[in-house]
Amino acid sequence: MDLKKKAGAVREAAYLLSTTGSDQRNRALEKIAEALAENRVEIIQANRADLERGERQGLPAPLYKRLKFDEGKLQDAIEGIKSLIGLKDPIGDTSLARELDQGLELYRVSCPIGVIGIIFESRPDALVQISTLCLKSGNGVILKGGSEARETNRVLTRIIREASSGAGIPGDWICGLETREGVEAMLVLDDCIDLIIPRGSNSFVRYIMDHTRIPVMGHADGICHCYVDEDADVKMAVHITSDSKTQYVAVCNALETLLVHRDIAHLFLPELKRVMDEKGVTLLGCPKTCQIISVGAATEEDWGTEYLDLRLSVKVVENRDEAVRHINTYGSGHTDVIVTSSRDAAADFLARVDSGNVFWNCSTRFSDGYRYGFGAEVGISTGKLHARGPVGLEGLVTYKYKLLGTGQVVADYAERRKSFTHAPLNRDCPV
Amino acid sequence: MDLKKKAGAVREAAYLLSTTGSDQRNRALEKIAEALAENRVEIIQANRADLERGERQGLPAPLYKRLKFDEGKLQDAIEGIKSLIGLKDPIGDTSLARELDQGLELYRVSCPIGVIGIIFESRPDALVQISTLCLKSGNGVILKGGSEARETNRVLTRIIREASSGAGIPGDWICGLETREGVEAMLVLDDCIDLIIPRGSNSFVRYIMDHTRIPVMGHADGICHCYVDEDADVKMAVHITSDSKTQYVAVCNALETLLVHRDIAHLFLPELKRVMDEKGVTLLGCPKTCQIISVGAATEEDWGTEYLDLRLSVKVVENRDEAVRHINTYGSGHTDVIVTSSRDAAADFLARVDSGNVFWNCSTRFSDGYRYGFGAEVGISTGKLHARGPVGLEGLVTYKYKLLGTGQVVADYAERRKSFTHAPLNRDCPV
Repeated sequence: MDLKKKAGAVREAAYLLSTTGSDQRNRALEKIAEALAENRVEIIQANRADLERGERQGLPAPLYKRLKFDEGKLQDAIEGIKSLIGLKDPIGDTSLARELDQGLELYRVSCPIGVIGIIFESRPDALVQISTLCLKSGNGVILKGGSEARETNRVLTRIIREASSGAGIPGDWICGLETREGVEAMLVLDDCIDLIIPRGSNSFVRYIMDHTRIPVMGHADGICHCYVDEDADVKMAVHITSDSKTQYVAVCNALETLLVHRDIAHLFLPELKRVMDEKGVTLLGCPKTCQIISVGAATEEDWGTEYLDLRLSVKVVENRDEAVRHINTYGSGHTDVIVTSSRDAAADFLARVDSGNVFWNCSTRFSDGYRYGFGAEVGISTGKLHARGPVGLEGLVTYKYKLLGTGQVVADYAERRKSFTHAPLNRDCPV
Repeated sequence: MDLKKKAGAVREAAYLLSTTGSDQRNRALEKIAEALAENRVEIIQANRADLERGERQGLPAPLYKRLKFDEGKLQDAIEGIKSLIGLKDPIGDTSLARELDQGLELYRVSCPIGVIGIIFESRPDALVQISTLCLKSGNGVILKGGSEARETNRVLTRIIREASSGAGIPGDWICGLETREGVEAMLVLDDCIDLIIPRGSNSFVRYIMDHTRIPVMGHADGICHCYVDEDADVKMAVHITSDSKTQYVAVCNALETLLVHRDIAHLFLPELKRVMDEKGVTLLGCPKTCQIISVGAATEEDWGTEYLDLRLSVKVVENRDEAVRHINTYGSGHTDVIVTSSRDAAADFLARVDSGNVFWNCSTRFSDGYRYGFGAEVGISTGKLHARGPVGLEGLVTYKYKLLGTGQVVADYAERRKSFTHAPLNRDCPV
């Protein structure tokens, strides 16, 4: 069956899925969790085949690590599904209710987006996580995983499909592309796919955006900043910088550039240097930084680099204005922090920094769906439209306007025989 | 000054604009309304120059009509600004407030998108309407109008810019491109423009989408359907069909295809034919329709055609399933109606039809921001992401997460010395 036909079948199934109730979708999620547990031997065998092939072909160590799907990771995936079941249904939520006239009622009601295309790296846990998020939110899903994980992905997709069928969900809601079916073939299916979510590097996301007219929700990398203002508590600033940089260096919400107000630099930087030396972090400074502490020189390139490593670029700035300008120029719109004891300074920074997450006196590492209390998360969006920052189930739904009338026509209003009341209604959509 | 520099200046001004209060933006809108009134002679003269050139160059009649900006249209534009001033500020609205832990508070707050690129046809009133919507919502705007309206657009842009400057808004928030600066140059400015709103035909919107990686909010055409179910009130169905088709034929929410359940076709179609004949509407029917009433035959192409004219295609369907499938296949996701006395049938249709506006027992023509009570409107979006259906000020804002801490770091939570409370807060963001 060609890809176009497959995708059409997903679209058809998604229409049916959009009419299922919360109970039925939750029952399907329970069945998936059970089936994953029951088939753990087959899953781990398939993963072992992928791992062995990866080893033979010299897969780099970080990819190999991400590819591995052992008992522990499977158990985490199952636990994730169980907590997803407990989350509120994102579908059918009335966000606007208004009487336009007597017997003519307008409701804005959340509904699934339709069909989501997911393109992801080697991690098989991402397949389980994202496809179950799509099911919970009533969306069909077309999955394109990395070829290095093909056996694992094939087994997981089949198990998820069969288990959800067992709960009366049309099995075609999920479809995994074969290795030979390229990403490019997916990018032209704008009749069948409503949204593409790529999980990969910045350049990968950019490539996808450049090659499709389907909207892309970008989960790109992060160049996160911490700005230490003139009246910051030095101890707090060091503590926050240290956690932001070192608590987990390989993630998108880790700190990459530190900006320091010139009036506090002499006090703060030596203190910072001491702690960073202890943690094994290499500092790279602007000329002014290098005058105060003995560190290597940062180049222009450093301000736009996501190290994901024990490195931190440091710049002394004249004032908050320069800090904001630097962040809006070199940042990636992910997460930026100000450390200051001034509420006015914080308010100004939070208003002017053009990022999805703007923090006052806390670590960049809080920028995360679980820490925000969203339960499951699709990823972090650095785009500004639809969903921004950590994206939970809300990012996988849209809405439609339902207008319930009793025979009204526009001519009566245009010719002023009737007029609109536009009165708020205090109820959910009744149909 | 080259376009890249101009756009950079708009971005800078937009950052400043994003920190202005509602009062200041409303004051600027008042000044714009005053300035448009004071400069009416100059505006109408500029428009006359455009009209004369258009006449010499043989501008088609509908374009000429849209280009015309006379006293009446100017007064409408001024009234539009005054009603915009009365609308609630879309910026600074807190849509989520949650305590993550003591002294660590998360707020999701609405904010401007940034810089909006508008590409529009000849209508100068669109320039005034959209740029003031952008100002109200704190966004910078880059305008590219049609060359046939260049004199009018230049004068309007200058007046709006100067008037807003007079209220302390940085004048660079608005920038009109010159005729020689093509649309293509705008489409590559993904560093400076956050969203493009094209106002034009379907094929024009599609062209824009294919040539930029900037998100596009498509205000495309509408192929709207009315489905007359088996137990519809025949008189109501005729009344709704007639209004949907004839109240104003040249607009995107006018009816283009009528679907009729086979069990009511014999009763309904002759009645419809009588009224459509009176209104001068040409019907084009499927074979079954042609067996019941004497009309021309519809071709496959008719089901996908937006007539914007006194023509209506008619198809007899087996059941609601076929109607829904037809709409989801040939429709444009704009507005679709069911006429039925069955609540269950209505609920099913409203759930399964994949359009931004789904109506029960009323005319397609209600699909409009003013009738919905949104005040001003950007247009109707047939996309599913960000904003769908009639788009008001809400479609011109995004949000950011503001996290207010007192020195918290993630290590304390990762190492279980502290835990999250995730308690709802009942207040707006205090900074």
